[in-house]
Amino acid sequence: MVAKLPEEEHPKQAFGWAARDQSGLLSPFKFSRRATAEKDVAFKVLYCGICHSDLHMAKNEWGVTQYPLVPGHEIVGIVTEVGSKVDKFKVGDKVGVGCMVGSCHSCDSCHDNLENYCPKMILTYGARNHDGTITYGGYSDLMVAEEHFIVRIPDNISLDAGAPLLCAGITVYSPLRYFGLDKPGMHVGIVGLGGLGHVAVKFAKAMGVKVTVISTSPNKKQEAVENLGADSFLVSRDQDQMQSAMGTLDGIIDTVSAVHPLLPLFTLLKSHGKLVLVGAPEKPLELPVFPLIAGRKMVGGSCIGGMKETQEMIDFAAKHNITADVEVIPMDYVNTAMERMLKGDVRYRFVIDVAKTLNP
Amino acid sequence: MVAKLPEEEHPKQAFGWAARDQSGLLSPFKFSRRATAEKDVAFKVLYCGICHSDLHMAKNEWGVTQYPLVPGHEIVGIVTEVGSKVDKFKVGDKVGVGCMVGSCHSCDSCHDNLENYCPKMILTYGARNHDGTITYGGYSDLMVAEEHFIVRIPDNISLDAGAPLLCAGITVYSPLRYFGLDKPGMHVGIVGLGGLGHVAVKFAKAMGVKVTVISTSPNKKQEAVENLGADSFLVSRDQDQMQSAMGTLDGIIDTVSAVHPLLPLFTLLKSHGKLVLVGAPEKPLELPVFPLIAGRKMVGGSCIGGMKETQEMIDFAAKHNITADVEVIPMDYVNTAMERMLKGDVRYRFVIDVAKTLNP
Repeated sequence: MVAKLPEEEHPKQAFGWAARDQSGLLSPFKFSRRATAEKDVAFKVLYCGICHSDLHMAKNEWGVTQYPLVPGHEIVGIVTEVGSKVDKFKVGDKVGVGCMVGSCHSCDSCHDNLENYCPKMILTYGARNHDGTITYGGYSDLMVAEEHFIVRIPDNISLDAGAPLLCAGITVYSPLRYFGLDKPGMHVGIVGLGGLGHVAVKFAKAMGVKVTVISTSPNKKQEAVENLGADSFLVSRDQDQMQSAMGTLDGIIDTVSAVHPLLPLFTLLKSHGKLVLVGAPEKPLELPVFPLIAGRKMVGGSCIGGMKETQEMIDFAAKHNITADVEVIPMDYVNTAMERMLKGDVRYRFVIDVAKTLNP
Repeated sequence: MVAKLPEEEHPKQAFGWAARDQSGLLSPFKFSRRATAEKDVAFKVLYCGICHSDLHMAKNEWGVTQYPLVPGHEIVGIVTEVGSKVDKFKVGDKVGVGCMVGSCHSCDSCHDNLENYCPKMILTYGARNHDGTITYGGYSDLMVAEEHFIVRIPDNISLDAGAPLLCAGITVYSPLRYFGLDKPGMHVGIVGLGGLGHVAVKFAKAMGVKVTVISTSPNKKQEAVENLGADSFLVSRDQDQMQSAMGTLDGIIDTVSAVHPLLPLFTLLKSHGKLVLVGAPEKPLELPVFPLIAGRKMVGGSCIGGMKETQEMIDFAAKHNITADVEVIPMDYVNTAMERMLKGDVRYRFVIDVAKTLNP
């Protein structure tokens, strides 16, 4: 059997931008989406955030990319069609899709509302649907996904600034909850003030937690404290500052995905403190064991969140007026945006205005 | 002021064996113990276990040793004298002292019955008492310590085989409890079948947990399963065995203090599984971050346990007839025992018969 062309696989014509090779450069791309099945929701994409993973995948830096690749997993839009068995959504609803569009629905993780840890979880782009076709992300004009993986976006969340909550937001919200770093009066450190870190500060503050931002860049202090509401700021390369904050933190959410030393972070933790990594360096980090043992400390990881918790996160964000700080860009700026993101030149998330700027 | 000789510092004459230099060789040593203060308990030492730390300290392998060093922190005996304000113990009681003999009694850790994490915790040997004198361990004829750091040994625990519970026992019991690996029906791995590991198997089984022993030595399988009651055994170097056990464990207690890879252990864990290190390699380990994130796994450390929990552990051991498997030796065999321990040639703990074999 000859493989069908992307635009012939499914009945719905779709259009987006795709990476074609390891250069990671994106360009216009015709493909197709499946017909809206009985449990599916179809929606017109309005905005899509640019996550650093999009660039890793576009350049095949994790070695798993299949081209053409349409990135984007911070997708929001307006429902255009629902399947006959869909009961939570109707045409016109504001909705979103995050990092996943499928799972097995039968394993322990799925039963526990932790589809994100299901071994058969289907990523929003660059993965395979149950029917074997490739998933395409939100740098495109329309989405079709199972109702189960659709999030309702509350009315008071602006769709552009809300989009990044679907990946960056849940990635930091979930570990704050799971590792018990959400108790009012606690003191939590946020390492790295990028797309994830700046939202982490907002969520932690809304939970009633005291927040210290830890960054290599002294020039982020004003922003962290004045604009984002952090209580204090540590320059990680300043030995004196780090020394004076020794043993003060109940937990740390570490958003840095470059290789970096953990020992200074362990030192900041109180006994029984928890360091949670949400950025994945390509190489193993050095784990000093003595400080872990002497203070019964731990280091854990966390990967986005389940669908139930993602809805909870968005509702919490709406209640506390939390969105990402974004720079909205046109579709044809995406390659430049990727370059700027790589240099850290964005405060704090690029969001593509898909509806207005994606021209077939 | 001229420093006093060890035998002149305090009023009670004491005698034991001490290491004098980095050779770690032990030899007879005269010193002294303080008079029994109002909150102190004095006891005649009957047995003292040999912990691997004793050898590390005797050879100054952690760089903190002050010679002469009298090791020993698995000490049991019979009360000979109590201070005027001691109300929990009387002359003739069976008691023990573990790894610590003092703490500040005022910090958060002390208030939470976690004296083991008190920044001013005083180790049983090679540390400094509140009065500035050096602490000496249980390779000696008598002990004096604060009532707070004395454990009652239940009648049905044999004193020789019970001694190692005071370090090896609490070191594995505490993390099983704290990290929630004590729920009946759970499946826990124990890495390394030495002094700590063999007691961990017994405690975990008594808690109703399914136990898999993971070891480099295939020849320990029979011992683990038939004598210690483990449910299964994995040879860590056997790729097929390790592969087939992937994703089966809720948690792991890792007792190995040599540098070793963590990735195979993470692979054995289910999602949300916990790896707890209780052995401290001198060098940092490699921490692969992807598996931590993808499965929301964690790696933590744990250091002995507080006094309340140590008593709870001993009472639990008495109820479930748990003691260590020991080889009882005379005092003058200690240097040979250390050599054998270094080669792993002991099942599973040496215990010195102090009362009968320590001759002044």
